[in-house]
Amino acid sequence: MNSFGLALRITTFGESHGAGIGCVIDGMPAGVKVDMEFLLGEMDKRRPGKNKLTTQRNEDDTPEILSGVFEGVTTGTPIAVLIRNKDQKSGDYSGVANSFRPGHADFGYLSKYGIRDYRGGGRSSARETAARVAAGAFAKMLLREFGIFVEYGVFQIGSVVASGEDFDFAAGSEIFALCPENEAAMRAQIEEARDAHDSVGGAVKVRIKGVPAGLGEPLYHKFDSELGSLMMGVNGVKAVEIGVGIKASAMRGSQNNDQRDKNGFLSNNAGGILGGISTGQDIELKVYFKPTPSIFLSQQTLNAGGEEQTMNLTGRHDPCIAARGAVVAGAMAALVAADMLLLNTSSKLESLKRIYG
Amino acid sequence: MNSFGLALRITTFGESHGAGIGCVIDGMPAGVKVDMEFLLGEMDKRRPGKNKLTTQRNEDDTPEILSGVFEGVTTGTPIAVLIRNKDQKSGDYSGVANSFRPGHADFGYLSKYGIRDYRGGGRSSARETAARVAAGAFAKMLLREFGIFVEYGVFQIGSVVASGEDFDFAAGSEIFALCPENEAAMRAQIEEARDAHDSVGGAVKVRIKGVPAGLGEPLYHKFDSELGSLMMGVNGVKAVEIGVGIKASAMRGSQNNDQRDKNGFLSNNAGGILGGISTGQDIELKVYFKPTPSIFLSQQTLNAGGEEQTMNLTGRHDPCIAARGAVVAGAMAALVAADMLLLNTSSKLESLKRIYG
Amino acid sequence: MNSFGLALRITTFGESHGAGIGCVIDGMPAGVKVDMEFLLGEMDKRRPGKNKLTTQRNEDDTPEILSGVFEGVTTGTPIAVLIRNKDQKSGDYSGVANSFRPGHADFGYLSKYGIRDYRGGGRSSARETAARVAAGAFAKMLLREFGIFVEYGVFQIGSVVASGEDFDFAAGSEIFALCPENEAAMRAQIEEARDAHDSVGGAVKVRIKGVPAGLGEPLYHKFDSELGSLMMGVNGVKAVEIGVGIKASAMRGSQNNDQRDKNGFLSNNAGGILGGISTGQDIELKVYFKPTPSIFLSQQTLNAGGEEQTMNLTGRHDPCIAARGAVVAGAMAALVAADMLLLNTSSKLESLKRIYG
Amino acid sequence: MNSFGLALRITTFGESHGAGIGCVIDGMPAGVKVDMEFLLGEMDKRRPGKNKLTTQRNEDDTPEILSGVFEGVTTGTPIAVLIRNKDQKSGDYSGVANSFRPGHADFGYLSKYGIRDYRGGGRSSARETAARVAAGAFAKMLLREFGIFVEYGVFQIGSVVASGEDFDFAAGSEIFALCPENEAAMRAQIEEARDAHDSVGGAVKVRIKGVPAGLGEPLYHKFDSELGSLMMGVNGVKAVEIGVGIKASAMRGSQNNDQRDKNGFLSNNAGGILGGISTGQDIELKVYFKPTPSIFLSQQTLNAGGEEQTMNLTGRHDPCIAARGAVVAGAMAALVAADMLLLNTSSKLESLKRIYG
Repeated sequence: MNSFGLALRITTFGESHGAGIGCVIDGMPAGVKVDMEFLLGEMDKRRPGKNKLTTQRNEDDTPEILSGVFEGVTTGTPIAVLIRNKDQKSGDYSGVANSFRPGHADFGYLSKYGIRDYRGGGRSSARETAARVAAGAFAKMLLREFGIFVEYGVFQIGSVVASGEDFDFAAGSEIFALCPENEAAMRAQIEEARDAHDSVGGAVKVRIKGVPAGLGEPLYHKFDSELGSLMMGVNGVKAVEIGVGIKASAMRGSQNNDQRDKNGFLSNNAGGILGGISTGQDIELKVYFKPTPSIFLSQQTLNAGGEEQTMNLTGRHDPCIAARGAVVAGAMAALVAADMLLLNTSSKLESLKRIYG
Repeated sequence: MNSFGLALRITTFGESHGAGIGCVIDGMPAGVKVDMEFLLGEMDKRRPGKNKLTTQRNEDDTPEILSGVFEGVTTGTPIAVLIRNKDQKSGDYSGVANSFRPGHADFGYLSKYGIRDYRGGGRSSARETAARVAAGAFAKMLLREFGIFVEYGVFQIGSVVASGEDFDFAAGSEIFALCPENEAAMRAQIEEARDAHDSVGGAVKVRIKGVPAGLGEPLYHKFDSELGSLMMGVNGVKAVEIGVGIKASAMRGSQNNDQRDKNGFLSNNAGGILGGISTGQDIELKVYFKPTPSIFLSQQTLNAGGEEQTMNLTGRHDPCIAARGAVVAGAMAALVAADMLLLNTSSKLESLKRIYG
Repeated sequence: MNSFGLALRITTFGESHGAGIGCVIDGMPAGVKVDMEFLLGEMDKRRPGKNKLTTQRNEDDTPEILSGVFEGVTTGTPIAVLIRNKDQKSGDYSGVANSFRPGHADFGYLSKYGIRDYRGGGRSSARETAARVAAGAFAKMLLREFGIFVEYGVFQIGSVVASGEDFDFAAGSEIFALCPENEAAMRAQIEEARDAHDSVGGAVKVRIKGVPAGLGEPLYHKFDSELGSLMMGVNGVKAVEIGVGIKASAMRGSQNNDQRDKNGFLSNNAGGILGGISTGQDIELKVYFKPTPSIFLSQQTLNAGGEEQTMNLTGRHDPCIAARGAVVAGAMAALVAADMLLLNTSSKLESLKRIYG
Repeated sequence: MNSFGLALRITTFGESHGAGIGCVIDGMPAGVKVDMEFLLGEMDKRRPGKNKLTTQRNEDDTPEILSGVFEGVTTGTPIAVLIRNKDQKSGDYSGVANSFRPGHADFGYLSKYGIRDYRGGGRSSARETAARVAAGAFAKMLLREFGIFVEYGVFQIGSVVASGEDFDFAAGSEIFALCPENEAAMRAQIEEARDAHDSVGGAVKVRIKGVPAGLGEPLYHKFDSELGSLMMGVNGVKAVEIGVGIKASAMRGSQNNDQRDKNGFLSNNAGGILGGISTGQDIELKVYFKPTPSIFLSQQTLNAGGEEQTMNLTGRHDPCIAARGAVVAGAMAALVAADMLLLNTSSKLESLKRIYG
């Protein structure tokens, strides 16, 4: 199942070392202005090879829009986007064709399918997330028509946790660091891990601003359910929190409930979602990435024949997936918000009356 | 959208103070033995009014199977289950018809639908989770045919965290406490909150044992995505962790990767899922519940007219939803596992050959 | 898979001789007035046992609304409807437990599921269509808010074909005959078949009036695709035509194309749908029912052991399913139209702007 | 909504005069041998410009497989296929940018989306069916592993109806004529229509051989429902019959029921489907195409401003869409059969036991 979304349905395809990757965006309303410069900017944020903190695989990630756009606007028909792979080095992977890399999906894929494209992890490679970022860029073009914007930033790398929150700063940071005071320390965490032939984890905060109250589908495609699903599905993510998240379990109701007065809510512990439906406050969530499983230290594993093996990986990998993962998390947040916006158009008779008069 | 699941599709219906609640289970294979005693036992675990630690609403929660079972086994047709509401006291809610309870979905529902059934929270009430438990019981009847079992227990209530892990003990504990040493302290947390007219949060650990390697749908209905979706969608849940969860963000790859030798994996930081697909290890996750939003202390809110109001709730509520929430989390885990088991039957040509010869 | 519809999702459950049948209607906008008298009237049209031209099974088919309605209007939450079975006579079917009735789904169900509820055809019984009619009644309550109405009538029974078209007359006819001139002859066809212990086929015309131009989903849930799917799925239907249907294959383009002038279309050969999208003309279709497979003449078949058998059925059956089938076809048409209306609310940015300001 | 299928999910994209068209095939089991020669052969059957009986638009329709295939077999991941457009002549359409072509979807698209890609009909062009044929070729590669094959042929063009049935002959006929005796007369119908600047309708018979009993999803994705949906959704189709189809309405039950003896069924009036489930007999259906709406005779229509207009179309069009439509109908039949095969793998516990041991 390579699709998600109910009203805005995204299907992705492609492998790390195949011809390319891409997506089909179905359900985008007609009449949305397509901003190519914005799309290219979004792609560039996630693009590998830009600096020494990411994989050295060098892809320009230029998306080709194959359909669904005419004279600069969406037509309501499916928007297919293709991103060619250019800098594959499949030779790097001959050593892993018959082994299971620790922390990777190799064994699961083989168990499930009886075959796997071992080159760069095949379909399970984070390379596929470029397609998500392309789709997310279209979602953002829709959302901004309604004053809805997504912000994100890395608030933790290894043992360094951000001491402040500056999403504008994060947008300009090479590692999307959320706080200028800690950026250097975060970089150091990545560099140290890289230099030790190892990798390091990290975590991302996402905020969706401007979401009107009333979005979210009870009872099984709640706004937070969808965020839970799609964030947990991003490569390497192992935890998701909405609002105060885990802390809520230690709180009393009188502390946790967000009270209101005429000026609005007095707090936002809920992270903008109650009962699965947006409250009109900012939607806030945290997404936790594990360290990159591809490391260059010796590891113990099995080969396809079930024999013990000491694995010494080569190849090109991000020493910390949380940094570029932040861009992906932002894209997924936009896709969820756009889906919820579109799903909600028939929630009440009054809305239909406005459309059909 | 009141359905979930791809191969095993669950649709629920019903409100807290309507005629009843229920579910339709579609996609259950034919030939599964229906164990009524087991079903009733599952319902009883979640049933309210059993002790002073839950709401005093007294429902026997006896499920009526309306369809899909013939001569004691499933027939492959939809299984509809109806649970009548019996102990509604709608009078309790007349005071909230025109107000928005802090921490509740009231405002969101009104924003979305322009109308709401304010009696007991209507559709957003946790009463609906009885239908999930019924569906989960059927999922478990299927899973045990394949040696797959779900365990769960409460590992945190307020400031008390379990010091050990004993799922068998949890199964017999009134509050599903995961560790005998802390059960009394956990109970005390609930009682203190209740006596203070307040409520308290808590957290649950779930383990799915016996899942074969290879289950989970890349790339958008991964095993962990579905857990993320459905756990985050349980009433009051604000965070979900798979395996080591949040801790992964502070780790190095060399610490986090689960290496293997001939005797199996050397650790289970991944929580049994890599790349969205089961590895054959136990699937482990943690689910964090906020404190019950219904408390009996004065709170500041707005009424439907937008005026400030001091709200003093009455009614019957659990002082801690995590306890009975543990049963619901276990049911959802079973439903995810069953869905993944069924979805996987056409993953490779070899499987089809086994069926169609 | 016992659900259909994308925005208005209908799930049905129940067997002929189980506790009852019913449906869950999910996606109905909030705020639609629920007209109980209308619902009961719709149920009564399809109800068996009213006259000597239908099965003598006597069911009052009173629907109980279990959820989704509050203070006389829909709330946006799922509407569950339950119709209890009351006049089951399962003893009638003991003779067919181990045989395959010609023209019935018996063999297919056993092949698929390895087990079947043989009482009255179980899930494959046309009794399930009462649930569709209930769902269709809700769809009609929505549609009439927008001036959309469904008409239907039987235009053929056996060798008798209607010579005219009077939908108002059909609405009052016991057999939903489309033309007063042929009603008696149609009745005679049914009576003769019944008296000969046989059955007879028939056909129904359906018209949906008032559908605005622009409804229908390209490219795979076109308005006509959905009609094709759902009409072909009604028990006993073997053919569906849209507009001139089969005749189109013998025509030239210059004859078939519907030209337009200022007063509107000059013809409606297309039946109101082009490229899968409504044109604003009446939507017209024809639905063809086979004769009831349950007949009381001796028939040659096999038993479950594969041995030849001469079958002599007993039981209670409609001698012509097309008559009551007309009501079902009308309900399905309403459900398709309502789904298309709801699906279309996010087709263009302008519609969203009207809703979200 | 540009997807269809439940277990085998096909998403298509592309417009007549855009960069290209294509599809994503999701749910194909891993391990199916990919036969490129077969794929190219299938594409060639539908390819335009091969002879004077089709449009003179000259496309080689070479498909590029972008993903999902590794070392000559499917991997279980999505198979994306791209077919570039090469011989667009968009200038041909400048005249229709502001008019609604009779018999075309132009007005519907504009009503729905507020914008349309008028070049060659944009998304509504039959050019999109090349993507369906590519997807169908993959379905056939799967089906033949189980001895399931699809045959088709044109049995009617205008006033000429086939007097016999020879699917092998049809496979080699330029117009897929089902009977050698009538092929010339059928060709004459097309040539006469073309020379009169007009077009002509036609009809296609499809047979699916080798389908095991038990395939089809009760109650709403029946085998015949899905055929009804997908055939009615093929460009220009206005009617679908299963088995004897319309004739069933004039029959008695005793005539129509297919009785059985030890040697099998005595007839196949049902067309191989009862109660929506395959019986093990050949599945037979008929699909009726309207004449091509693009004709070169003057027609009366309106322009976008609502003014009357006499339209004189130019461009390149098939004078009879039924011929190449036969290939598309065959592809759709294969896709339905493959979907039903895959969906059925979890219908009974016994099947799961065979897979999971």
